[in-house]
Amino acid sequence: MSHLNLNPKSIAIVGASHTPGKVGYNTLRNILVSCYKGAVYPVNPKGGEILGLKCYSSLLEIKNKIEMAVITTPAVLVPSVIADCAKKNVETAVVISSGFSEVGRPDLEKELLKVKGDVRIIGPNVLGIKNPWGPLDAAFSYVMPKKGGIGLISQSGALLLGMAHLANEEAIGLSLIVSVGNKIDVDDTDLIDYFNEDPHTKVIAMYLEQVNNGDRFIKAAKRSKKSIVAVKAGRSEAGLRAAASHTGAMGGSDKIYDSAFRQAGITRAFSVTELFDYANALALMPKVRGSRIGIVTNGGGLGITIADACESLGLEVPQPSSEILKRLRDPVPKEIKPGNPADLGGLANFSDYREAGKALIEDNKIGGVIMALVQTGLTKLEEYTSATIEVARRGKELGKPTIGCWMGGKQIRDMREILAESEVPIYPSVSRAAKVMAMLCSCYTK
Amino acid sequence: MSHLNLNPKSIAIVGASHTPGKVGYNTLRNILVSCYKGAVYPVNPKGGEILGLKCYSSLLEIKNKIEMAVITTPAVLVPSVIADCAKKNVETAVVISSGFSEVGRPDLEKELLKVKGDVRIIGPNVLGIKNPWGPLDAAFSYVMPKKGGIGLISQSGALLLGMAHLANEEAIGLSLIVSVGNKIDVDDTDLIDYFNEDPHTKVIAMYLEQVNNGDRFIKAAKRSKKSIVAVKAGRSEAGLRAAASHTGAMGGSDKIYDSAFRQAGITRAFSVTELFDYANALALMPKVRGSRIGIVTNGGGLGITIADACESLGLEVPQPSSEILKRLRDPVPKEIKPGNPADLGGLANFSDYREAGKALIEDNKIGGVIMALVQTGLTKLEEYTSATIEVARRGKELGKPTIGCWMGGKQIRDMREILAESEVPIYPSVSRAAKVMAMLCSCYTK
Repeated sequence: MSHLNLNPKSIAIVGASHTPGKVGYNTLRNILVSCYKGAVYPVNPKGGEILGLKCYSSLLEIKNKIEMAVITTPAVLVPSVIADCAKKNVETAVVISSGFSEVGRPDLEKELLKVKGDVRIIGPNVLGIKNPWGPLDAAFSYVMPKKGGIGLISQSGALLLGMAHLANEEAIGLSLIVSVGNKIDVDDTDLIDYFNEDPHTKVIAMYLEQVNNGDRFIKAAKRSKKSIVAVKAGRSEAGLRAAASHTGAMGGSDKIYDSAFRQAGITRAFSVTELFDYANALALMPKVRGSRIGIVTNGGGLGITIADACESLGLEVPQPSSEILKRLRDPVPKEIKPGNPADLGGLANFSDYREAGKALIEDNKIGGVIMALVQTGLTKLEEYTSATIEVARRGKELGKPTIGCWMGGKQIRDMREILAESEVPIYPSVSRAAKVMAMLCSCYTK
Repeated sequence: MSHLNLNPKSIAIVGASHTPGKVGYNTLRNILVSCYKGAVYPVNPKGGEILGLKCYSSLLEIKNKIEMAVITTPAVLVPSVIADCAKKNVETAVVISSGFSEVGRPDLEKELLKVKGDVRIIGPNVLGIKNPWGPLDAAFSYVMPKKGGIGLISQSGALLLGMAHLANEEAIGLSLIVSVGNKIDVDDTDLIDYFNEDPHTKVIAMYLEQVNNGDRFIKAAKRSKKSIVAVKAGRSEAGLRAAASHTGAMGGSDKIYDSAFRQAGITRAFSVTELFDYANALALMPKVRGSRIGIVTNGGGLGITIADACESLGLEVPQPSSEILKRLRDPVPKEIKPGNPADLGGLANFSDYREAGKALIEDNKIGGVIMALVQTGLTKLEEYTSATIEVARRGKELGKPTIGCWMGGKQIRDMREILAESEVPIYPSVSRAAKVMAMLCSCYTK
């Protein structure tokens, strides 16, 4: 079997169309729009030119090596295209075309497998792939994620697009997005192995509706050097009904997935928001040693609600050691008693916020710190941003995570971009920040 | 006792300062910046002019009626200012000044109560009030919320500012924000009564650390015609320690608050995000009859995860009645089986989204609908926005709530503003939308 290659030097788009709006046109356009640096060969028996590129009548007519074929022809034509891919030694075929088992034509899928030879097939019935490091957007709806460390696998096409937009909105970087569709050849298990070898991927994130071969999947997850976070959708009766699980799946019961995930060391998330929250924290931060964390805040109320949420999830927010309490005397205003949460009051400046954060992260009793902030309008958010980056840097030296929980409006969104560039994860709500800290902790103790 | 008046026709700022950056300058400036339409009288014994306004040497020097005094003088001077307020028949004194019981000077608070006469005192140690309907921003850090139906009470100053920014960011309208501080006179109970008479307030939202008189509070909540949502911070050991509860409080145990809230019909939230999510839904939407809800989605995966989250919170996502299933045949693509969630696929247009939503909201079995959407880039978000507004309109005719769960990037934020103007609450995450639906449901059945 040939090497699965999702960062190709050359691509043919088989089924490239002259008509804007058609999948075969939009996919070709999106590859070009993404500033893909490799060679691009549109294939359409009608010939001519599309978007300024010469159109080939068939794959076999192209003289040069083709590493990836993106296929958008009608389903009935796909078997012969795959046969051509095999002849031409194409490494990876991304079959965007739909009209297979999802509409009652599993026979067509069997044909593909019969003729594929060494070709690795993604799909059919996929949205495509998006590779920000390529760069390459080989999908029929355009959105290019930022470069980052999360490898994303999705069994839902529309959701995959939403996730790409969401990642950009949340300033989260991705290494590669793969739509897996009907998974007749390349499945989640192959992708776990692929991402393990991918130099840009730090964490693997998956949206799953069912796993075809549970044993293989668990084995791949167990041998994965990289953390895996997964949403397994279809937990409820209505959800299961909607997911309409396919034959050969690992089993319908949610409990089976739960125990399989635990066995395989997969962190379970229950929504796409949680999937990104967890994956991003795991990509950027070390895990928590123990379950005791520190909180720094410029707003007393925010600190209290974070402490409440953390303790309700099994974390402890202990009083700092006496030496650290002494260090907190300076950044904490004189009318407030220093402690944990360390409440710095609304007028805290760069130095207060940095010193309090450093004091807590350097406390031997404390495994990680949440830098909490409310937008008060009384000081510059840039000051808190830089202070947080410095605390996080110190935390990394000590092998302890620092995350932000910042509440407010538009300006906080801007700061989030800066924090993301410095690889500090930041959350806009108390429950999201507390859950991430608890996740970082349970991962460690596992 | 005089009438509590938080929408005054005239204001004196006692302690107005000539120095930018000082509380007494910034507060005066913010009142002017907020385009307050009433008369403004700076008071400072030095006289002169501040920001183009004549400065009076004392409250008593002003000839005209003063409805509200905002006080920023040092704490030791406040008693004599309050005595002047009493003489001048000022209705409401907002004491921004700090330096009272929070720094061990309860004696100064007793003095205020001794001389206050008929004056209603807010504070001391407050940030001020913000009244978007006034308009009036009488606080020392400026941020004007949008006009809306949520009356907000906060015992935390910095958090109050963060909440104002957050409300704007989330396109949530407020009727009035009041910082209650040390609550020596006007407390949460008085404000519940005030908001009950306020024509703009539809829902009362509170951030509380402790209640001074539990019985009075519960009675006011019970007689409230308007829904009350509250965060009671300090549930955990660390949170309680940080909240450092005061003497006379209703009791430290979180369980006491929990049962008191239940008894009084107060909906409990556990963070500021939840506080706004719940309050906004209660302000804009009817409650759910029963616990059965419908879900419309253009992304299968999103629909499934929402169904999962709803069922985990006790809601049902039932199959629609046969008549409704027939109506769904048209908007649902032919390769997908119609059901609930109604999965319309990524290419759904205005009409599909509207018709599916209307079909579910008109189903007698269903009490409310979540219009779910992923940003796919394949169709215009404006189409889904208008369709959602039409479904919500139909829902209101039937006394059923419609909320949105929209996942994606920046463009969804823009749509959120339009949906907010049409009074449709929208949430960017599955868990927030599901929790809101469950809250709307448990309120009804209570």
